[in-house]
Amino acid sequence: MLVPTAAGTPAAPAGSPADTAPSVSASTAVAQARSTEVEEQLARDPGRFRVLTGDRPTGALHLGHLLATLDNRVRLQDAGVDVVLVVADYQVITDRDDAGDLPAVVREVVLDYLAAGIDPARSTVFTHSAVPALNQLLLPFLSLVSVAELERNPTVKAEAVDAERRQGRGMSGLLFTYPVHQAADILFCRANLVPVGQDQLPHLETTRTVARRFNQRYAPTTGYFPEPEALLTPSLTVLGDDGAKMSKSRGNALELRASEDETVRFFRRARTDSERHITYEPERRPEVANLLRIGAHLAGTTPGELADAVGAAGAGRLKTVVTEAVVEGLRPLRERRAALAADGPAVVRDVLARGNARANEIADRTLADVRELMGTMYS
Amino acid sequence: MLVPTAAGTPAAPAGSPADTAPSVSASTAVAQARSTEVEEQLARDPGRFRVLTGDRPTGALHLGHLLATLDNRVRLQDAGVDVVLVVADYQVITDRDDAGDLPAVVREVVLDYLAAGIDPARSTVFTHSAVPALNQLLLPFLSLVSVAELERNPTVKAEAVDAERRQGRGMSGLLFTYPVHQAADILFCRANLVPVGQDQLPHLETTRTVARRFNQRYAPTTGYFPEPEALLTPSLTVLGDDGAKMSKSRGNALELRASEDETVRFFRRARTDSERHITYEPERRPEVANLLRIGAHLAGTTPGELADAVGAAGAGRLKTVVTEAVVEGLRPLRERRAALAADGPAVVRDVLARGNARANEIADRTLADVRELMGTMYS
Repeated sequence: MLVPTAAGTPAAPAGSPADTAPSVSASTAVAQARSTEVEEQLARDPGRFRVLTGDRPTGALHLGHLLATLDNRVRLQDAGVDVVLVVADYQVITDRDDAGDLPAVVREVVLDYLAAGIDPARSTVFTHSAVPALNQLLLPFLSLVSVAELERNPTVKAEAVDAERRQGRGMSGLLFTYPVHQAADILFCRANLVPVGQDQLPHLETTRTVARRFNQRYAPTTGYFPEPEALLTPSLTVLGDDGAKMSKSRGNALELRASEDETVRFFRRARTDSERHITYEPERRPEVANLLRIGAHLAGTTPGELADAVGAAGAGRLKTVVTEAVVEGLRPLRERRAALAADGPAVVRDVLARGNARANEIADRTLADVRELMGTMYS
Repeated sequence: MLVPTAAGTPAAPAGSPADTAPSVSASTAVAQARSTEVEEQLARDPGRFRVLTGDRPTGALHLGHLLATLDNRVRLQDAGVDVVLVVADYQVITDRDDAGDLPAVVREVVLDYLAAGIDPARSTVFTHSAVPALNQLLLPFLSLVSVAELERNPTVKAEAVDAERRQGRGMSGLLFTYPVHQAADILFCRANLVPVGQDQLPHLETTRTVARRFNQRYAPTTGYFPEPEALLTPSLTVLGDDGAKMSKSRGNALELRASEDETVRFFRRARTDSERHITYEPERRPEVANLLRIGAHLAGTTPGELADAVGAAGAGRLKTVVTEAVVEGLRPLRERRAALAADGPAVVRDVLARGNARANEIADRTLADVRELMGTMYS
C-alpha cells in the first residue's frame, strides 16, 4: 500500500505508543485471518478482485520494493486480478518543497514496473495528477472525516513528527489530509482489495470508514463503494548496505536498474556478523537473515534452506551465493529494462497515456455516479 | 466573499480574541485604502478586473444578500468587470450531514441571481462540483499551507466552535481545509479581485499566500497566479424580524422571492424602539437604523435622509415608508423572477450548462498550466 514514505516503510516504529496498539493488534489478528481467506478466494476466482496499489515517485525502485511489493503485484496480475497502479505524484510534495525532476523519476518507476513484469495490456498504470475526477472525490470524502480522526491517524502522527524533525517545520495540509486522498485513490476505481503491511492497516481503515459513511449517507439501500479489504503482506524489511532499512533517501539501496558490478560491490559492503556458521535467526542475526531473505527470494528457495546450504562456509560464501542469486535473478528484469529504456521516451509515454485514459474513464464514471447520488447534478 | 455561513455573516464576533486583532486591524486600514484605489481603477478600466464571488446554496437568497452582496455584483458586472459566481455546493456539507434538496435550492439561488440582474451572457455562474480541474487544484495548494496556519484561520476557528456547539461533533476535514478550497475557487480563474467584508480579510490572506508561494516555488521568474485584492464591502448587517442578523437558518429572513403580502407582514413584525422621533444612530438604535438602511437602499437614498423624512412621524410611519420602498424596489426583480420561474427548469439548466462549460474551459487551461509548471506532465 502506498504511504508517504518509501514503499514498505513501517508507518510507526515497532513498540509505538500504546494508544493505538490494543485495537490495532486485535484488528491485525482479524485481518490476518481474513487475508488468508481472501488468498483462497483469489486462487478460485481472481476476476472478482480489483487491487489498487502504487508508489510515490521519489526515485527509481530498489530491491526492497521488489521483495516487499513489486513481485506480489506481478503475481496478482498474472493470477488474473485487475491490478491498478497509481504513481502518486502529488504525494511527493506532502513533506518536501522540491519534487525533483518528476518526469525523469516517473519514467524510471514505470520502467521498473514494466521490467518487473507489469503488463500495461492487463494492468493500469496512471499518475494521479492526470485524473481530475479522482481528485475531486477528495472534497466529498473530506466531509465524511473529522479533524480529530485525521489527527489520530498513526501514519499522519508519525509523519508529522518526522517532517518536523527533518525540516523543522509543521506538517502540510496535504500530508494531514493524505489518508483521505488515498481513499480517493482506492475508491475511484472501486478497488476491493489493497495489499498492505500490518502497520498500514489503520490507513485502510480511513478508506473503509469513508466508503461506509458515504454509503450510509448517500446510498443507504443499495450501497455504492465497496469497503476494500486488506491483503496482508509480510512485514518484510530489506536492509541497505549500512544495516538500516533500505531506502532511496538514505542512499543505502540497491536499485533494480543497477549494473552487475554495482550489485557485486553492494553485497561486498553488506554487513554480516562475527559468527562463522550461517543460520536463519531473524531476531538475533538481522543482517545475516536479511541476506538470506534476499538470496532466497531471488533463487526461489527459503531463507532456512539457503542457510543450511551455506552452513559452515561462513559469511564470505553467503555473500557470494546471494550476489549470484541476485545477479542471476535480476538478469531478465535488467535486460528487459535496458531494452525498454533504449526504445526511448515513447514507451513510458504510451503506457501512461493508456493508463491515464483508462483511469479517467473509470474516474469520470464514478464521479458522475457520486454527483448523482449526492444530488449535485443540475443540468 | 463566500464563507461557510450565510453570506455576509461576520467571521468572528465583534470583540473576538486579541490574538489576531492587532494585525487584522492594521491590515484593515491598508486594505481600506487599497480598496478605494481599486474602486477608482474600476471606474477607469473595468476590463482589467475579474471578480470571483459566490454563495453556498443553503436556501433562496434574502434581503440581506441583496444589500450586502448581490446589488454590488450587478453593479460590477454592469460596469464591465468580468464577474464569476460560484454556487459553492460542496461547502454546504462542510458542517452538516444533510445537504437538503440541492437541485431545488441551486435553482432558487440561480433564479435570484438572474432576477437581480446577473446576465449569463456577461457573467459566469457555475457550481463547483461540476468543475473537476478546479477541485484538483486543492491538492497542490494544500501542500503550500501548514496545518498550523489552517488552525489559526479565524473563520475556521469560529466555525469549529459553532459546529461543536450546534451539532456536538468535531469539525469535518472539509471545513478545516475550506480556506484552501476557496483559494482554488478564486485562483482557478485567476481572479484578481474579491469582494469581502472586513471580517473576511484573513480568508483572502490564505488565497494570497497560496498564490505567492505557488509562484515562488513553481514560477519564480514569471509568476503565474495573481495575488487577488480585496474590494472591501461595508460590513452591512441586515437584521431579521426578530432583531438578530438575518439568516435563512434562523428563519427570520425576508426572501427576495417573497410576495408583497409576506413583505408587509415581515415589516409589521420588525422591531423598532420606544423613541418616537426617528434618527439614524446605528450604534444606539440598531433596529431603527436597520429599517432605515433597508428603506434607503431600495429607495436610492441615504439612511440619514430617510430618517429626516420620517422624523417625528414615528416608527409606524417608518415601517410604512420602508415597506413601500421594498415592495416598489423589489417589484421589477420579483416580476422577472416570476416570469423566469414560469418558464420552467430549462432556464436555470441552460445558465448552469453555459457557466459550467466556461468554468471548465478556464479550469482545464489553468490546471494544464499548473501541471506544466510543477513538472507533472508525462505524456
